[in-house]
Amino acid sequence: MNDAASTPLSPIGRRSGRVRDGTVTLAHGSGGKAMRDLVDDVFVAAFDNPALAPLEDQARFALADLARDGDRLAFTTDSYVVDPLFFPGGDIGELAVNGTVNDLAVSGARPRFLSCAVILEEGFPVADLRRIAASMQRAAAAAGVAIVTGDTKVVPRGGADKLFLTTSGVGVIPAGVQIAATRARPGDRVLVNGCIGDHGVAILAARDDLALEVPVTSDTRPLNGLIDALREACPDVHCLRDATRGGLATVLNEFARAAGIGVHLDEAALPVRETVKGVSEILGLDPLYYANEGLLAAVVPPDRAEAALAAMRAHPAGRDAALIGEIDSAPAGRVILHTGFGGGRIVDMLVGEQLPRIC
Amino acid sequence: MNDAASTPLSPIGRRSGRVRDGTVTLAHGSGGKAMRDLVDDVFVAAFDNPALAPLEDQARFALADLARDGDRLAFTTDSYVVDPLFFPGGDIGELAVNGTVNDLAVSGARPRFLSCAVILEEGFPVADLRRIAASMQRAAAAAGVAIVTGDTKVVPRGGADKLFLTTSGVGVIPAGVQIAATRARPGDRVLVNGCIGDHGVAILAARDDLALEVPVTSDTRPLNGLIDALREACPDVHCLRDATRGGLATVLNEFARAAGIGVHLDEAALPVRETVKGVSEILGLDPLYYANEGLLAAVVPPDRAEAALAAMRAHPAGRDAALIGEIDSAPAGRVILHTGFGGGRIVDMLVGEQLPRIC
Repeated sequence: MNDAASTPLSPIGRRSGRVRDGTVTLAHGSGGKAMRDLVDDVFVAAFDNPALAPLEDQARFALADLARDGDRLAFTTDSYVVDPLFFPGGDIGELAVNGTVNDLAVSGARPRFLSCAVILEEGFPVADLRRIAASMQRAAAAAGVAIVTGDTKVVPRGGADKLFLTTSGVGVIPAGVQIAATRARPGDRVLVNGCIGDHGVAILAARDDLALEVPVTSDTRPLNGLIDALREACPDVHCLRDATRGGLATVLNEFARAAGIGVHLDEAALPVRETVKGVSEILGLDPLYYANEGLLAAVVPPDRAEAALAAMRAHPAGRDAALIGEIDSAPAGRVILHTGFGGGRIVDMLVGEQLPRIC
Repeated sequence: MNDAASTPLSPIGRRSGRVRDGTVTLAHGSGGKAMRDLVDDVFVAAFDNPALAPLEDQARFALADLARDGDRLAFTTDSYVVDPLFFPGGDIGELAVNGTVNDLAVSGARPRFLSCAVILEEGFPVADLRRIAASMQRAAAAAGVAIVTGDTKVVPRGGADKLFLTTSGVGVIPAGVQIAATRARPGDRVLVNGCIGDHGVAILAARDDLALEVPVTSDTRPLNGLIDALREACPDVHCLRDATRGGLATVLNEFARAAGIGVHLDEAALPVRETVKGVSEILGLDPLYYANEGLLAAVVPPDRAEAALAAMRAHPAGRDAALIGEIDSAPAGRVILHTGFGGGRIVDMLVGEQLPRIC
């Protein structure tokens, strides 16, 4: 089997051509020559950048190039265990880069450097690994970050489910930016940048071979550009969080608890695709709990809400942005969904298992 | 089963007492309430520190507190998949903290902040998780670092081998420090801080129930304090690397290749315990390829070698330190082991699978 013939690589990549095996073996995780060849041939080739090239055990950067007086550093980590690895609209590699970029960006940070730790199951196809590395590099380039350090481990067959990725990230929060869940205030407006539940339904469909009339693709995307646009229109964003596992319901509950306020949602204003609604009705699931991979919830002061919404809608990652609710002092620590008939119900955090399991 | 009764916790920990389950369930990875309870009850309780407490999706620090003009940032990541999780001399949690501390420290960085991403198999005992979290916190405190951000994922039974950890780390390299594999020069001396192969043999013994007359324990330990002492005695350390997977042989080959020099080792000078020698002879394995978790190789200028050795021996992590060899211009890119009979052999990088598999 010749991986080289069938596997696209990042255009900046160089190939040592030393990895000819069709599948990953335990030797590829040994720390020795086989591992070095795999790392050079797959990851260094795809992620090619000056910090990674020396293959020291750590990447190094001059702080003067990175930040100025008063700036803060943001640091985050996430593991990705999604099944299947490739799904409509993305793959685990893109997810891992975008997820960590977004966890940095919602603090107001400019994401800069990512690390990538890979746990591989013996027997994993090298061609799939190349495809995932190339996808990571495309996502990193799109978000303006560099993957600067990494690690590769191989576990025996049956020891792990194909491939897990852990990305960590470092970003710089410019002086003066203060975004925190505790800052939600009565009167503030709640915005989202797009439709709810796409990622969850895309994974569900890929896993269970659901034949959807209108296919739904994952919303995986970097949010840092959108957040820059949002902050330009509304410099004092109070809260920002991306609604991944646990869904939008969980993020809004986190705001409610952290700030001791009530979040009031207008059900009719929630952007949900018809297909997602349909799947949810058939399966008895609530889109508010589906995971998303490119959805953020923003809490902004009322006088900047319209400008913030317009700025989001003008950005490719915010075309379906909507104003979905408002903050009130009561009920403290609760999220209320107001339905079309004047009624309302408490939307709790996700309790129990998330369906579908997606990250 | 009552975990609370049997599980020691870090003395600084607070316990919410909300996690009563005996084992981890998929709900604990859901992103919702169950996960929050687990994270609060196990990790936040153990790692308790101001950066972690807000449970935002990222930790944030003022750069002014972290570094000064001319300093550089070091950033590293490693996954830990060791089996068994608990072994003579340590456990996976201690290993994960020390390993990332050491990957930072060998750049000359002062390790500061760690992240911790956990992938759990459904059914994992919560008591073991608490034990590992407590062990991570003890190791972090010993190394002077804080675990400031994290992530928890749960995969279905059979989807992962019990528990994997990925730790990433950020440290600060003081202005002027230039440690790199490329800096080895003819005449330089090669030092190690301790005995070779202890970790590999400890894992082997734990896994295969080897009955050793003199038990061998893992050498897992933080090296940052030792490196501070070494750099005080020898400010211009040329190369430093910790010899983990691939063993000392692989690290020395990395020096040889990066600098285009020859590394000449004196077999008689290599510190190897009698038990490790014995096990190796019986099994036909070479201690130079065993993994270590607290062993560093240092290349220093000849005029500071004795001072460097004395400084290492005066530190608890360097009591068995030894001068094991010398750098020459030839053979470029090679490591030669000189045996007691005037002979010598090429020591290559590890090729193929590492035995025993240990990280």
